[in-house]
Amino acid sequence: MYQVEIFVTYKESILDPQGEAIQEAVNQMGYREVESVRQGKYFELEISKDVADVQATVEAICDKLLANVTMEAYRYTIKEA
Amino acid sequence: MYQVEIFVTYKESILDPQGEAIQEAVNQMGYREVESVRQGKYFELEISKDVADVQATVEAICDKLLANVTMEAYRYTIKEA
Repeated sequence: MYQVEIFVTYKESILDPQGEAIQEAVNQMGYREVESVRQGKYFELEISKDVADVQATVEAICDKLLANVTMEAYRYTIKEA
Repeated sequence: MYQVEIFVTYKESILDPQGEAIQEAVNQMGYREVESVRQGKYFELEISKDVADVQATVEAICDKLLANVTMEAYRYTIKEA
């Protein structure tokens, strides 16, 4: 089995209002040392070893379903379990 | 500066309907080798070195704001940049 972690975040150029709102809330809670917050999506997939090309499969799933590639960037890790 | 990554996912005992819906969609797209999908939230924080205790600060922010600790579990990494 492959254990896959996928991280999807807004591209640097894209405004992240949710991240900014969280930062404001955190600063107001008294944690003034927090200088920036970015929020994203996180996925854990289990993929069977029968897959022909695990990397190509992960990238196709990200491109087609998990990330809006116009606004979001993704990265992933693949571990054999 | 500290670079902090936070991963928030449902506790094992909690149903993850969104993860299941994604898995179904992925399988229907033809990626039958994907055996499970779990979705969560991902945060990147930058915290200044002036902070007294970075670990305690991160845990307080998770407990109070980023995670619903009744249903969600979180883990984090802290790197010095």
